[in-house]
Amino acid sequence: VALKALGEGEFEGTTHADYANMVGPYGGITAAVLLNAACLHPQQLGDPLAITVNYAGPVADGPFRVVARPVRTNRSTQHWFIEQWQGDAVCTTATALFGKRRETWTATEALRPAVPPADDVEPRRSPIPLAWMQRYELRPVVGGVPDPQHATPQTDSITTLWIRDHPARPLDALSLVALSDNFYPRVYRRLGHAVPAGTISMTTYLHADAAALATQGERPVLAFAWGQQFGGGYFDQSAQIWAEQGGLLASSHQLVYFKD
Amino acid sequence: VALKALGEGEFEGTTHADYANMVGPYGGITAAVLLNAACLHPQQLGDPLAITVNYAGPVADGPFRVVARPVRTNRSTQHWFIEQWQGDAVCTTATALFGKRRETWTATEALRPAVPPADDVEPRRSPIPLAWMQRYELRPVVGGVPDPQHATPQTDSITTLWIRDHPARPLDALSLVALSDNFYPRVYRRLGHAVPAGTISMTTYLHADAAALATQGERPVLAFAWGQQFGGGYFDQSAQIWAEQGGLLASSHQLVYFKD
Repeated sequence: VALKALGEGEFEGTTHADYANMVGPYGGITAAVLLNAACLHPQQLGDPLAITVNYAGPVADGPFRVVARPVRTNRSTQHWFIEQWQGDAVCTTATALFGKRRETWTATEALRPAVPPADDVEPRRSPIPLAWMQRYELRPVVGGVPDPQHATPQTDSITTLWIRDHPARPLDALSLVALSDNFYPRVYRRLGHAVPAGTISMTTYLHADAAALATQGERPVLAFAWGQQFGGGYFDQSAQIWAEQGGLLASSHQLVYFKD
Repeated sequence: VALKALGEGEFEGTTHADYANMVGPYGGITAAVLLNAACLHPQQLGDPLAITVNYAGPVADGPFRVVARPVRTNRSTQHWFIEQWQGDAVCTTATALFGKRRETWTATEALRPAVPPADDVEPRRSPIPLAWMQRYELRPVVGGVPDPQHATPQTDSITTLWIRDHPARPLDALSLVALSDNFYPRVYRRLGHAVPAGTISMTTYLHADAAALATQGERPVLAFAWGQQFGGGYFDQSAQIWAEQGGLLASSHQLVYFKD
């Protein structure tokens, strides 16, 4: 996610082979890169609260520019528009929201999936030979990556797993956004086989404050995803990223195209 | 949502007293206005599939400008960035995604709430005297607007209701986006009383194709919302808009600020 400042809100970066996907970089790392441009901007205020990333076109391996513009700064919130460019084409757009967190009434209403502790689940690397998947340590509980030889259609698209960066490192807002895109396309699980599919828009809401991130440290987070509606060449996925102990660190949603 | 074209991707509109909220217009109508700017743009292609609207600052009653820019057009998808301006300030930003729908495998995995038929639920107008709420006919099933005199804290923030425009009119993409913001803030229900609260970012995924909208017509849709995580001055809400008969027309998510 490293970026070099070129000028007012303009940055230069390059894709990294370790986060390569089938074509171009992993969408999660692109989301983190765009958020990082706002974080590095001298006018940035507050914590990242929300980001919507639109995967407008392919990102080629190599250099890119990111332009981050604070569209509006209020007393306690700040709104951003961010674009990733290669040559004359916009590859990715994002809007991001930063803001101050205040002490308020707190509650977790989402239901945490019932799972064994992370340490009781065998860690494994992804069976899919994509570079970015090797950058995560996975402990699948339910709905692991379908084995192309033996998978069958399923009546749900739920995946639950413990996950952390590999090598392990302390969780921060960028890695939280990156890993909110870690789930393989839900349609694979429903159909029982892989099909062409890709995220076109992803929104992540960051609930974790600095204390929650510090408590989490480099321990695995609990990740949970399911699809809601499939059809017309698209489906939507919702996801939750839970702290090892306790609350919801992030909720994330995406629209995915697929062919069958 | 009426807009007058001023020039290349630039439009002029004005707030309407019928959709007034506590301060400025109802967020749902603002979302529909921004989507409409892309719909009216001569370069627009395909169906609206997703929109993220960021409520960056207050919209004053009166005229506004909307600037809609097709950031990237691909073979089957088109990405937009849209801004609403008043004077020198950006009030609202949005990204929108349009695309072609194709015949594919279809499934609804989300669970439809079990409710009585719309015709068996008494229609009523909102007990809250806000102009925009009078523009909807509500048939609350669970979690109706809390009565300020008698409400008590609840252990969940679920609301389920049948809803349609008042006066009734056929559903389209704009009205679907508008009504995905109809839910009163989830935190009211949890706390048992109203507090200052407002949506800061909303994302709606539109699943309904032209046939699904035509089948729905002007009949009530089933609307369902719940909160996931509350704290630090923010909470997130997820919502589903179901066809009277059958499938999911839209799923919607938002981040809301609140004070307690």
